[in-house]
Amino acid sequence: MGQNEVTLKVTVNMQDQILTSANKPRATADALSTGRAARLAIRRNQHTGSTAGFAPGFVQANLAILPQALASDFLRFCQRNPKPCPMIGVSAPGDPAIPALGDDLDIRTDLPRYRVWRDGTVIDEPTDIRKWWRDDLVSFALGCSLSFEQALLDEGIELRHMTCDCTVPMYRTSVETNAAGPFHGPLVVSMRPMKPADAIRAIQITTRFPSVHGAPVHIGKPELIGIKDIGRPDWGDAVPVHEDEIPVFWACGVTPQSVIMAVRPDFCITHYPGAMLVTDRRNTEFAIM
Amino acid sequence: MGQNEVTLKVTVNMQDQILTSANKPRATADALSTGRAARLAIRRNQHTGSTAGFAPGFVQANLAILPQALASDFLRFCQRNPKPCPMIGVSAPGDPAIPALGDDLDIRTDLPRYRVWRDGTVIDEPTDIRKWWRDDLVSFALGCSLSFEQALLDEGIELRHMTCDCTVPMYRTSVETNAAGPFHGPLVVSMRPMKPADAIRAIQITTRFPSVHGAPVHIGKPELIGIKDIGRPDWGDAVPVHEDEIPVFWACGVTPQSVIMAVRPDFCITHYPGAMLVTDRRNTEFAIM
Repeated sequence: MGQNEVTLKVTVNMQDQILTSANKPRATADALSTGRAARLAIRRNQHTGSTAGFAPGFVQANLAILPQALASDFLRFCQRNPKPCPMIGVSAPGDPAIPALGDDLDIRTDLPRYRVWRDGTVIDEPTDIRKWWRDDLVSFALGCSLSFEQALLDEGIELRHMTCDCTVPMYRTSVETNAAGPFHGPLVVSMRPMKPADAIRAIQITTRFPSVHGAPVHIGKPELIGIKDIGRPDWGDAVPVHEDEIPVFWACGVTPQSVIMAVRPDFCITHYPGAMLVTDRRNTEFAIM
Repeated sequence: MGQNEVTLKVTVNMQDQILTSANKPRATADALSTGRAARLAIRRNQHTGSTAGFAPGFVQANLAILPQALASDFLRFCQRNPKPCPMIGVSAPGDPAIPALGDDLDIRTDLPRYRVWRDGTVIDEPTDIRKWWRDDLVSFALGCSLSFEQALLDEGIELRHMTCDCTVPMYRTSVETNAAGPFHGPLVVSMRPMKPADAIRAIQITTRFPSVHGAPVHIGKPELIGIKDIGRPDWGDAVPVHEDEIPVFWACGVTPQSVIMAVRPDFCITHYPGAMLVTDRRNTEFAIM
C-alpha cells in the first residue's frame, strides 16, 4: 500500500509538470517552429527542459518505452482503452524510429530528457537513452490533451486552469479501465468547468480529435464516477467551478502512466515531465473531420 | 394578457398532440411506406388523423402558411433562429408546391387536416385548404424533433417521454429569440433526461442534424435558462429525472408556433396537431455527415 502510494506520487509529479509547464512557453525561437526543427535542436542537446511552446501547432506526445515482454499486453491495453490511451505511434521492437510521427525521428535522442525506471524507481534522468537502449524495447507515443486544448482555445473556449495559471485538476474515478494482462486500474480524468453552451461546443470540438482523448467521458454530477469532492483533485490543482458552470471530464493521460507504474516493470523509460516528444504531425491532421 | 394566455394554450395543445400521437403509430400499411404513398392516400382523403407511424424513416414537418405581408419577416425570423425554427422548405407566394420536399407535393391537399386561423382564433379545421387558398400565401415547412429522436432511438438512447408514453416536457425559457419584424418571444425548449454518457452521445448524434433542431441548446442547471421547476413544464408532461441523470434541452418547434400566434396574424393556416406534412426526404438525408 505504502509503495503504491509512492508510485502514484511519482506519477502525479510527472503529469503536474507536463501540464503546468505547458502553460508557460519557454522557447519560441524560429529554429523551433516545426516539429523537425525542434527535434534536431533537442538532438544536438541545445534544449534539455520543457518542450512547452515548441513547434506551435505540431502534436506533442507522451512517451512510454517497455520491454517486448510487456509491450504486447500494453498494446492491447491501449487498444481496449482508446480514450485514456490514444496510441499515435508504436515502434518495432528495438527500432528507435517511429516514421509515422517524423521521418528522421530517433526516439533515443529526440526528447530533451528521459526517466529510466527499474522496478518502479527512477534510476536515471538522462538527456539521451542510447546507453540504455535494448533490442527488445518497444516505444509507445500517446496523444496528449495539449492538442485538443489548442482546438478549444482556438474556438474561444476558456480553459480555467490556464486562466488560473495552474495544473488541470485530475481525479481517480470509480470507473475501471478494461484490463489486459497485468495492466489494469481506475480511469483517471481531467476536469474543465464550462458554461453549458461551451460544454456542448467543447464536446463537438473534441469529438473531432479521437486520437488525443476525443470527446469527454462524463459531464456534470462528479459523484456518479466516484469523485467525492470536486474541490480536492487527486492530482493537479483545484479550480473554481462557478454557479453557472458544469464540470466536463475527459479521459486523462495519467491513466496509462499510473497503470504502467502500478505494474512496476523491471525496466521502462518514459519522457521526463514536460519534456515531450515533438512530432511532425500537425494538431489539425488529427481532426477526423 | 388574458388573450395571450389563451393563445398560448392553443399552442400548447398543438404541440402536445403532435408529440403524444407520435408515440402511438396508428397506420403501418404498406401503402404508407413512403412519403409519396402516404401523401397520395391523404390526398384521396383516406386518412384524416395523425401521421404518426406513416412512412417510417421519412421526414415529417410542421407547417405554417402566412400571407406574404408577414412571410418575409417570418423568413428572416427563422433565418435568425435556426435552432428553434429549422426551415426545410419554403414555397413561392401562392404556389402550393414545395418541390424540395416532394415532386408532386400539393400543400393544399397533402396534410390530413389543417387549422385555419383568423386574428388568432381557429375558424376551420378542414381536411384540405383549397377553398381557403390565396395567391399571397407562403408555406413554411419546419423540421421537427421526430427526425432526431429517431436517430437517438436507433442508437439505443432512451427517450423518457416515450418510456412514460407521454408528451415531451417543454419549458418557456428566459432566453429571447432574435426578433425580426413583429416576430419575437422566448425560446421554448424540450427536455430529455439522460445519463451523462448518453447526453454526450446525444449531443454528437443530434449535431449531425442541424435542420431538425440540431445539437442541444443547454445541459444541466435548468435555472440558468430561467426554468424554475423542472417538475412543472409549461407544456407537455413532467417526466422523472433520476439521480444519475442530467436534463438535456433542445430548441423546440413550439417556439415558432407561439411566436406566430403572439402576432395574431389576420390570417394563417397551420397543420392540425399531429397531422404533419410527410415528405419524400429521408431522415438520414438530413445528416450533415
